[in-house]
Amino acid sequence: MASLMKAAVLREFGKPLNIEEIAIPDPGPGQILVKYEATGVCHTDLHAIEGDWPVKPTPPFIPGHEGVGFVAKLGAGVTRIKEGDRIGVPWLHTACGCCTPCRTGWETLCGSQQNTGYSVNGTFAEYGLADPDYVGRLPDNLAFGPAAPVLCAGVTVYKGLKETEVRPGEWVVISGIGGLGHMAVQYAKAMGMHVVAADIFEDKLALAKKLGADVIVNGRDANAIEQVQKATGGVHGALVTAVSPKAMEQAYGFLRSKGTMALVGLPPGFISLPVFDTVLKRITVRGSIVGTRQDLEESLVFAGEGKVAAHFSWDKIENINAIFDRMKEGKIDGRIVLDLAS
Amino acid sequence: MASLMKAAVLREFGKPLNIEEIAIPDPGPGQILVKYEATGVCHTDLHAIEGDWPVKPTPPFIPGHEGVGFVAKLGAGVTRIKEGDRIGVPWLHTACGCCTPCRTGWETLCGSQQNTGYSVNGTFAEYGLADPDYVGRLPDNLAFGPAAPVLCAGVTVYKGLKETEVRPGEWVVISGIGGLGHMAVQYAKAMGMHVVAADIFEDKLALAKKLGADVIVNGRDANAIEQVQKATGGVHGALVTAVSPKAMEQAYGFLRSKGTMALVGLPPGFISLPVFDTVLKRITVRGSIVGTRQDLEESLVFAGEGKVAAHFSWDKIENINAIFDRMKEGKIDGRIVLDLAS
Amino acid sequence: MASLMKAAVLREFGKPLNIEEIAIPDPGPGQILVKYEATGVCHTDLHAIEGDWPVKPTPPFIPGHEGVGFVAKLGAGVTRIKEGDRIGVPWLHTACGCCTPCRTGWETLCGSQQNTGYSVNGTFAEYGLADPDYVGRLPDNLAFGPAAPVLCAGVTVYKGLKETEVRPGEWVVISGIGGLGHMAVQYAKAMGMHVVAADIFEDKLALAKKLGADVIVNGRDANAIEQVQKATGGVHGALVTAVSPKAMEQAYGFLRSKGTMALVGLPPGFISLPVFDTVLKRITVRGSIVGTRQDLEESLVFAGEGKVAAHFSWDKIENINAIFDRMKEGKIDGRIVLDLAS
Amino acid sequence: MASLMKAAVLREFGKPLNIEEIAIPDPGPGQILVKYEATGVCHTDLHAIEGDWPVKPTPPFIPGHEGVGFVAKLGAGVTRIKEGDRIGVPWLHTACGCCTPCRTGWETLCGSQQNTGYSVNGTFAEYGLADPDYVGRLPDNLAFGPAAPVLCAGVTVYKGLKETEVRPGEWVVISGIGGLGHMAVQYAKAMGMHVVAADIFEDKLALAKKLGADVIVNGRDANAIEQVQKATGGVHGALVTAVSPKAMEQAYGFLRSKGTMALVGLPPGFISLPVFDTVLKRITVRGSIVGTRQDLEESLVFAGEGKVAAHFSWDKIENINAIFDRMKEGKIDGRIVLDLAS
Repeated sequence: MASLMKAAVLREFGKPLNIEEIAIPDPGPGQILVKYEATGVCHTDLHAIEGDWPVKPTPPFIPGHEGVGFVAKLGAGVTRIKEGDRIGVPWLHTACGCCTPCRTGWETLCGSQQNTGYSVNGTFAEYGLADPDYVGRLPDNLAFGPAAPVLCAGVTVYKGLKETEVRPGEWVVISGIGGLGHMAVQYAKAMGMHVVAADIFEDKLALAKKLGADVIVNGRDANAIEQVQKATGGVHGALVTAVSPKAMEQAYGFLRSKGTMALVGLPPGFISLPVFDTVLKRITVRGSIVGTRQDLEESLVFAGEGKVAAHFSWDKIENINAIFDRMKEGKIDGRIVLDLAS
Repeated sequence: MASLMKAAVLREFGKPLNIEEIAIPDPGPGQILVKYEATGVCHTDLHAIEGDWPVKPTPPFIPGHEGVGFVAKLGAGVTRIKEGDRIGVPWLHTACGCCTPCRTGWETLCGSQQNTGYSVNGTFAEYGLADPDYVGRLPDNLAFGPAAPVLCAGVTVYKGLKETEVRPGEWVVISGIGGLGHMAVQYAKAMGMHVVAADIFEDKLALAKKLGADVIVNGRDANAIEQVQKATGGVHGALVTAVSPKAMEQAYGFLRSKGTMALVGLPPGFISLPVFDTVLKRITVRGSIVGTRQDLEESLVFAGEGKVAAHFSWDKIENINAIFDRMKEGKIDGRIVLDLAS
Repeated sequence: MASLMKAAVLREFGKPLNIEEIAIPDPGPGQILVKYEATGVCHTDLHAIEGDWPVKPTPPFIPGHEGVGFVAKLGAGVTRIKEGDRIGVPWLHTACGCCTPCRTGWETLCGSQQNTGYSVNGTFAEYGLADPDYVGRLPDNLAFGPAAPVLCAGVTVYKGLKETEVRPGEWVVISGIGGLGHMAVQYAKAMGMHVVAADIFEDKLALAKKLGADVIVNGRDANAIEQVQKATGGVHGALVTAVSPKAMEQAYGFLRSKGTMALVGLPPGFISLPVFDTVLKRITVRGSIVGTRQDLEESLVFAGEGKVAAHFSWDKIENINAIFDRMKEGKIDGRIVLDLAS
Repeated sequence: MASLMKAAVLREFGKPLNIEEIAIPDPGPGQILVKYEATGVCHTDLHAIEGDWPVKPTPPFIPGHEGVGFVAKLGAGVTRIKEGDRIGVPWLHTACGCCTPCRTGWETLCGSQQNTGYSVNGTFAEYGLADPDYVGRLPDNLAFGPAAPVLCAGVTVYKGLKETEVRPGEWVVISGIGGLGHMAVQYAKAMGMHVVAADIFEDKLALAKKLGADVIVNGRDANAIEQVQKATGGVHGALVTAVSPKAMEQAYGFLRSKGTMALVGLPPGFISLPVFDTVLKRITVRGSIVGTRQDLEESLVFAGEGKVAAHFSWDKIENINAIFDRMKEGKIDGRIVLDLAS
């Protein structure tokens, strides 16, 4: 095996990533080395390299957390996985395994968690380390390209849909039909829900329609809320992928009594809820962060069965900085996946 | 039976109530006439007579919705109740019985509901009409005085506690130890919860302690949140009875990851939630409005067993305007109950 | 309007039904008269006319509880429905509306319920009475023929599937692909479940496959349990429509740990559960009886959208005794629907 | 530290345990050595040494799985616990941590679990090995004696009560007031439930009454079911600790519609459920096996607060065979705890 690998390294916040040749890491006890074949590029990676959030990563580091590939080497004591297995490495790199969240199936809330491409090196590289207990197994018939976006975008919206508590046959609105939302439409349909897609761009709405949305609504329409209330009687749940408090507040208006809104985007700032309506209509508003290992496995199964397929474009790791430029301008359709195989 | 009764009538918003002698109403088909022995006075009555809310009652009307007394007369077709039964008349006067909320045990969200002392005449009177399917049965050993506040204050906090989803052995914070909050502390303890009581007045906190609160915290302390986080590791749920967005936002800070905040107060305006924390900690915020018939029955059983006892003072209907003056000044401890028996 | 109608009347248990001309009933206060266009024939009707169950109907009576048609006349005080509305009359004829089950969305457990075609006259007639608060509204694009079987068979399996607690993406086994089971396969698929169909007849299994079952298994195969365990890892839930304790016990074997089995059939006798396995695998076994008004509305929506279509054959009311003969011999495929329109 | 320890070793099924001096084991990577101060003796230990169950332990082995004591030594890589910590070692010795049950907070259903005193050496010894991620932390003010029975008896009934889904204010019946049941009465009261205690011995019923049971019933009374139905209207849930299918079937009769029965005992054989009643009353029957790590922590907190206290008698490890003799004869009141400290 080679001893060097290509990687995109962030050396200083706000600066471009460097494409470097660095040493392939060696898996310690309980770790595995992964040979990445592809990785998605997520909006969170942009936050990481710009140091946007209160708790920041420590440069230099390798971003990326939608990596898929093969198990290349096992560290000491690893037994439940074998070389050659096809796996994916998600944002939740590892967790403590024994705090209350970990013990109750909510390891995404573990206070000791490590995050791929943030607190530990990530997937914008030919190789990387992973915790075998926290990787996702890829279904046999799911290729690496479409698998990558499931690792974060897919599992996040799948979990968010669960968190709306919408049951089959009920109505959900997906607000924001971008990298996350276009997958959410597909998950919601596969889960038996009736779907309203809301966005402010007509081409996104057309895509949503094509992917199965029952009703579409342009959020810029002055009577968007009336449209949705009329078509559905008010939705049972709302999943807001749009990174915008304004979209969140509009989605709130789409709800019927006893409706639930789940938020998965991370815009800065606050969302304002009208107390009177929230109380009288018994509205629930809830945050949702990525998904657990169980959520990840389930979201991969839907993709493996062809019920959910990310729209993505292949690109090269050498173009990573240009990709982030386009992301900042909102010019990316669906998801960019880096080809790391060649 | 007499043909006239004493009642407190609101003839113009913002004006004092008139104490009048008016005709005792006659129960129509499916209705009952109730001889009130006592009624609580609730903050909502104040909103009613001042016309504070978007949808207003139509003067003249009789406010009040914590009425308790005897069934005095049955309208045509009433069979499931009999004269002399001890019952209570709550805010939820009646509902349609067959919309989705009504069919699923959420009649408090019925779009066709009538509200006692608001859309129909209420309990500040010696007699009043009621829907026998929506009154509460009083436990034998629960006197009228302590029963009255259960009809609204009690059932509201009991339901709100359920809506926090806090289980026995977990921590709940009760924010605001007034007419509602001091009952909430008792319900929470009877439900097996660990209780933090938060208020800005030391005498309210002392009362909470006496009623069983495990931890008390003065909301004015600069480190109130740190105190609660240290004592409890963060509470699993919060019930905010304080009519204050600021108290709601502080209560939010008391929560641990995956915590749920239930709001039962109706302050004007908005509550601001930080999106980042809501998502990363998977926080749930939820409104809760009074309680269903089932909630009412359950809340009465707790009171009948002596596990919950409202602090209240007897007063006379002739003093109703002075009572509202004191209510506006925040000078009422616990609950005022009007003696309508004599 | 005519004053006489055709009806199939049971005058003595175990004797054939008489086709008679009898007076069209007049709706009392709160009732409606329904002009039936069609009615399904259910296995429960057979139990009714043979007096099989501990609590029996009182002859003479008209059986039938899958009736669909138009509202023909309103009794006094009926306001929420109008003449000409297309509705369906289910087994749950009416309930008290204010006991604990009724108050909590479980009116199917009301101790004072009346049952169509059992404690009150049913749908094997050109006209019949109904409680407008307990009828189902038919979707506009659902014809009477396919609507009829939803009124009992459809709602029963839809509710039963909910009661398995199987979520979208998980596995459910439908045991028994007859009148109920062939609809259950379709509901389960529309609800996003993975479906195993189990029966002992190959033609039923072929039908299940055609209706979308992912896996089929012949219950007579000695290794049926191994087949299901291998294909699915054990199912998350089982819905047993087969009227057979043996089928129930086999379905139990299909479950994985933490699986839930819901029973909707009513065979005489007992089901035996192995205590050791039930405890160690945390198995749940649960009965489920028809469905509530909310369940009925939801199940009709699925049918109205074409996601579920009953296999049925038109027949005439004059043939009702022959139909029951075939039912006893297990010779009915799907459902028989009587044409009452002409 | 000494190199030898006293232990009770089973060398052949059905033969008495030998009290032996054997080598103190050394903790491997990720393990800890525990110095036991006390251990409870459970009925499961008797099954273990008699080889009663389909999957048997392999002699020689040390039984026991209610061990409490101090952490004496850390194996390589152990960081989340330290020498001197007060901990308890339960039946669930360790689990894989990454199967579906483990990932979803149901590690008690892990197919790869190890069990203390069964598949690995247990607590009838002065020292033993444990997995630090699966031990329980003892509250500071909970002495070793009363702590021991919580490790299995306590957590088992606490979890079982959760599994009945009985909420505060509702009724639960505890069937069997022995080592498990007398703790269940206390947990149920601390969880806010109304409690019926059922047993066939009057002294057990007297104990239950003293521990807070609201109603007691002798299961031998011919009208036991009528008594319970009359006193409670039918219980919402039943927890059967009695190792008897007959007791399970009687407890079934105590239930109201929509009631849930949880089974925690492991009698050989089958329980028979009447299909008709199960369906018409929507009864749920469910097995429950010990409790998860989260359940264990919660059950210990209740004990630490003095809300639950096991009745137990101290004894010596040298008497272990006599203890099992008394257990076989049903002559043990509450729990026997072996003093391992001296």
